[in-house]
Amino acid sequence: MPLTRISVPKHIPHSKVKALADAAQNALVKTCNVPVKDLFQLIMRFEAEEMILDQTFGGVVRSKDACIVEVTFLRGRTDNQKRDLFQQLVASATEAGFRPDDIMIALTENSHADWSLGLGIAYADHVNSSKKSDA
Amino acid sequence: MPLTRISVPKHIPHSKVKALADAAQNALVKTCNVPVKDLFQLIMRFEAEEMILDQTFGGVVRSKDACIVEVTFLRGRTDNQKRDLFQQLVASATEAGFRPDDIMIALTENSHADWSLGLGIAYADHVNSSKKSDA
Amino acid sequence: MPLTRISVPKHIPHSKVKALADAAQNALVKTCNVPVKDLFQLIMRFEAEEMILDQTFGGVVRSKDACIVEVTFLRGRTDNQKRDLFQQLVASATEAGFRPDDIMIALTENSHADWSLGLGIAYADHVNSSKKSDA
Repeated sequence: MPLTRISVPKHIPHSKVKALADAAQNALVKTCNVPVKDLFQLIMRFEAEEMILDQTFGGVVRSKDACIVEVTFLRGRTDNQKRDLFQQLVASATEAGFRPDDIMIALTENSHADWSLGLGIAYADHVNSSKKSDA
Repeated sequence: MPLTRISVPKHIPHSKVKALADAAQNALVKTCNVPVKDLFQLIMRFEAEEMILDQTFGGVVRSKDACIVEVTFLRGRTDNQKRDLFQQLVASATEAGFRPDDIMIALTENSHADWSLGLGIAYADHVNSSKKSDA
Repeated sequence: MPLTRISVPKHIPHSKVKALADAAQNALVKTCNVPVKDLFQLIMRFEAEEMILDQTFGGVVRSKDACIVEVTFLRGRTDNQKRDLFQQLVASATEAGFRPDDIMIALTENSHADWSLGLGIAYADHVNSSKKSDA
C-alpha cells in the first residue's frame, strides 16, 4: 500500500531501473514493516531537460543518472524508521550500480481510510476484517 | 479542486480510460460534495513493465488492466465519505468495463490555502469572496 | 527540497515550459525562503485528451495551454506566504507568455524527516549537522 513513484532519466536501461524499484520495495519491507507482496510502483521516464535538478544542493554531487523515489504510505513510521529506509534503499541501489548521490527520496503520508486496493473496499475495513498488516 | 491523477496501462483505449475518469469525477460529486465543474484530471500512460503491481495483495486478483486513481483534495471528508467514494467509483468503473479488482485508489489531503485555480489567487480567498463550495 | 511537478500540454515549446519552471522556483525562493539552488523539478508532458480540466471553474477562463504546478514542500509556510507564492509564480509566468488563467497550483506538505536529498542521509540530520536552511 505504499505507492512508490520512481522518476528516472530515459537513458537508464529498464533492468537497472527495475533494480532501483526492487531496492525501494526491499527497503520498505526491511525497515517499515511493509509486507513483501504489498508492492505498488509506477516508473516514470523523463527526457534530460524534463528533470531539472540542482547538481550539488544538499551536499551531494548529482550526475545525469539522478533519480527521484517518492513514496506515499501510512502515517506512523518513526523518524528512525525513515532514516533506516533511506539508508537501506540507497545501499541496495548502490549495489545495483547507482551512485549514492543520485538517489533522492521524498515521503508523503496518509491514513488507512485513504486507500482502496480494489473492489471499492476501503483498506481500513479490509484490515479490520482480516489479519492486520502494516502498509 | 480535487486533482485526480489516473495511471493506466498504454494498451487501454482512450474511450475506456475516459470512462474511468468520468467515474472518478462522478463519484467525487456524489459522495464528497465536489461541484460537477470542479474537474481537474491528469491521465498518465504506462508501459506494462513500468506498472509494477502485485497481482493479489489486498485480497483481489489484478489483471494487466489494473489502474491507479490518486486524488488530492481538501482535508475534511469523513471515513464514511471515503468509503462511499471508493464504492461509487468502482461501481461506475465496472459499468464502463473495468474489473472491480483492477481499480486501486489512494487519497491525499491538503487545505484550502494550498490551492490556486488560476490568476495567482488563493482558493481560500476565492471561497471567502464568493459562495463557498466544497472541493 | 521542494519537489515541483509541472504538468503541461505537449504542444507548448520547451523554452516556454522552462520559463514556467523558472517562475515556480523563483517564486519559491522569493516567498518561501527556499534556497536558490534547492531546485528539484519534474516536467510532465500530456496529450490534450489526457489533461481533463474544466474550462471555467474557479472564476477563470482556461485555454488549451492550461498547466498545473504541484509543489511538495515542508510544512510551516503561512497562508500569507502561500498567497505570495501564488501571486509571484503567476506574475512571472505571465511575463513568460502564459495567461494568468492557465496556471493552476496545488501544494502538499510533509516534514524534514520525509526527505533524503542523496547518500541515504535524512535531510533532518543534514540540517542539524550543518547550517539550517529552509526548503
